[in-house]
Amino acid sequence: MKIITVLTDFGYQDPYVGIMKGVMLNINPDLNIVDISHNVPSFSIRHAAFSVFSYYKYFPEDTIHLIVVDPGVGSKRKAIGARIDNRYFILPDNGIITYIWYYGKEKEAYVIENEKYFLKPVSNTFHGRDIFSPAASYLSRGIALKEFGPLLDKPILFSFYAPKKYDNRIEGEVIYTDKFGNVITNISREMLPTNKAFCVEIKNEKICKFVRFYGEAKEGERVSIVGSTGLLELSQNQESLKTSLNIRIGDKVKIVF
Amino acid sequence: MKIITVLTDFGYQDPYVGIMKGVMLNINPDLNIVDISHNVPSFSIRHAAFSVFSYYKYFPEDTIHLIVVDPGVGSKRKAIGARIDNRYFILPDNGIITYIWYYGKEKEAYVIENEKYFLKPVSNTFHGRDIFSPAASYLSRGIALKEFGPLLDKPILFSFYAPKKYDNRIEGEVIYTDKFGNVITNISREMLPTNKAFCVEIKNEKICKFVRFYGEAKEGERVSIVGSTGLLELSQNQESLKTSLNIRIGDKVKIVF
Amino acid sequence: MKIITVLTDFGYQDPYVGIMKGVMLNINPDLNIVDISHNVPSFSIRHAAFSVFSYYKYFPEDTIHLIVVDPGVGSKRKAIGARIDNRYFILPDNGIITYIWYYGKEKEAYVIENEKYFLKPVSNTFHGRDIFSPAASYLSRGIALKEFGPLLDKPILFSFYAPKKYDNRIEGEVIYTDKFGNVITNISREMLPTNKAFCVEIKNEKICKFVRFYGEAKEGERVSIVGSTGLLELSQNQESLKTSLNIRIGDKVKIVF
Repeated sequence: MKIITVLTDFGYQDPYVGIMKGVMLNINPDLNIVDISHNVPSFSIRHAAFSVFSYYKYFPEDTIHLIVVDPGVGSKRKAIGARIDNRYFILPDNGIITYIWYYGKEKEAYVIENEKYFLKPVSNTFHGRDIFSPAASYLSRGIALKEFGPLLDKPILFSFYAPKKYDNRIEGEVIYTDKFGNVITNISREMLPTNKAFCVEIKNEKICKFVRFYGEAKEGERVSIVGSTGLLELSQNQESLKTSLNIRIGDKVKIVF
Repeated sequence: MKIITVLTDFGYQDPYVGIMKGVMLNINPDLNIVDISHNVPSFSIRHAAFSVFSYYKYFPEDTIHLIVVDPGVGSKRKAIGARIDNRYFILPDNGIITYIWYYGKEKEAYVIENEKYFLKPVSNTFHGRDIFSPAASYLSRGIALKEFGPLLDKPILFSFYAPKKYDNRIEGEVIYTDKFGNVITNISREMLPTNKAFCVEIKNEKICKFVRFYGEAKEGERVSIVGSTGLLELSQNQESLKTSLNIRIGDKVKIVF
Repeated sequence: MKIITVLTDFGYQDPYVGIMKGVMLNINPDLNIVDISHNVPSFSIRHAAFSVFSYYKYFPEDTIHLIVVDPGVGSKRKAIGARIDNRYFILPDNGIITYIWYYGKEKEAYVIENEKYFLKPVSNTFHGRDIFSPAASYLSRGIALKEFGPLLDKPILFSFYAPKKYDNRIEGEVIYTDKFGNVITNISREMLPTNKAFCVEIKNEKICKFVRFYGEAKEGERVSIVGSTGLLELSQNQESLKTSLNIRIGDKVKIVF
């Protein structure tokens, strides 16, 4: 069975995700559809971008990753089918592809515009049903990406602030916050000083305790830690640091040592 | 693999849905169980009725659709197995079947009462486990609906207000509200005037802007749109119209032109 | 296809569950991964313990049950693979196994410590990805539990208050509360008096009406009922008894007759 993973902001209450699953199974009944999440914050392209970047590489190589977070549905934004380092992605051309494209080595993207592979009539409000799901399912049946439409020079990437290392500090930003209130930065383990202590400055607060695992922090204590993604995370033991400091994706982070 | 879709109001925290999946896989291990939603508002028969009506037709023809929203569990309400236009439905006889039955062409329904196909002992509180899931799974193994019990003359349908068109107006009602706060009416695209402007009246407010896709609306603006179901929807850009006007299923809607 | 069920407290918004599914499918692509719930209250070992106890027995015998509720991740708590009455369990050694172990007949548990079956490098924060998911998936491919590590004398069990029957009363405790606000006690149907009325005392309130099914209760009325698990439950019709009496797992319950 071919695997298609699904990430959306459609939530868990409405029939929209079920409709997409129906469309895919109707085109290819022999599918293993894997729910990732349908609770991406509504229209949050940056949340979806980091999310797919963090899970795609754990799946087998020929997996198809379908992502529908699509505030521009019905407008002229393109639909794209991409192949990056032997993985497949079907998603709107609105920046979700940013991290997987930027860090990918072998990569190509095609516009999805061949109506032969659309569910008709195509609506103006639900391309997840009419364009993205059919494309993912036809792809699982062996249709090549180039059958969907022309090669795309370069998909739309949002600008992101690459972390910078100076003599006495590193500057980066928040790229994700999770349900535990953990705050994930774009500063990787490799950038951190190995032989001296450091403090993390965020929102006019200083976090100077670095731990190796959550259990080392005392109740309520704020700490930094290298998380499971290999990136520096900020965390408050048994509380949500995100809430207590009102942190959002894009907030600046400074490490001083 | 046979497909069984599942729609319930059991939520995502408790073991009830997992128990139903176990019961089904124990009877037929070769099943593709597809989650639609388990967040139907508790006991909301009308929500479930519209939901299944909107997704069932996208699945392959022999799919079995299991729906457990069952406020009358343990009382004398019947359990039914239905076949409507070559699709199968297992659900309580409490009105959930209303739209799929009313709009279906070829249709028949059977009472599920043959204890041979029950999980025993049958509880008074969880027929999802003891009656509905076993029936769905035995059906997937080829047991005919008529093996479950006698033909049912007509399942229970709730009364719903069919939209009416007059010279200068259309009267309808709200049949669904989704997580984005979009308000779906029962007025179809075909009923709308094609060559003149119109306003929608709801809750003493007037919405006079009609758009083709969400992006045409300005921030916070209230608009009407033909949604992905082919029905007229009301929407407030980047806000929840449902919340801002406190709209519920059954609220009256009037289109004036 | 081998079945692996998954229960976690990772929620439905973040990529963590998706990452675990990817890891499992990468090791064994021919898996039927069944979501039970990812909304176990954060770090609630008792919630997870009752949950798995209530669903595992409905699944086919060779099913693998993976549970990741792991407040001690990164510390010295063990990872265990257990076989109890022909079912398999992969979970942290923190008490989640309590009920299934206590009530199981044939049982054995092994420490998971053979790094050959780890995803490397092993993080200090996400053993669900690096240790538990790989173990579950290798198990599904036929690797024996004893390959993972040495036999464990006895897993960690939390102490729980076994119900006690006296001449004029039964004393027990709350072991679970569900999304409907139903309160599940550890007092079984068999302990209840069969020929006389009784009242349930909880939080200085008395509930004296016993019903056979929910529909027998009037709106807002508090009742007791034997639930689908065979245990005495307390419930408030169309309201949450849990909320109205502020009930938590572990609260004492007394039945007087």
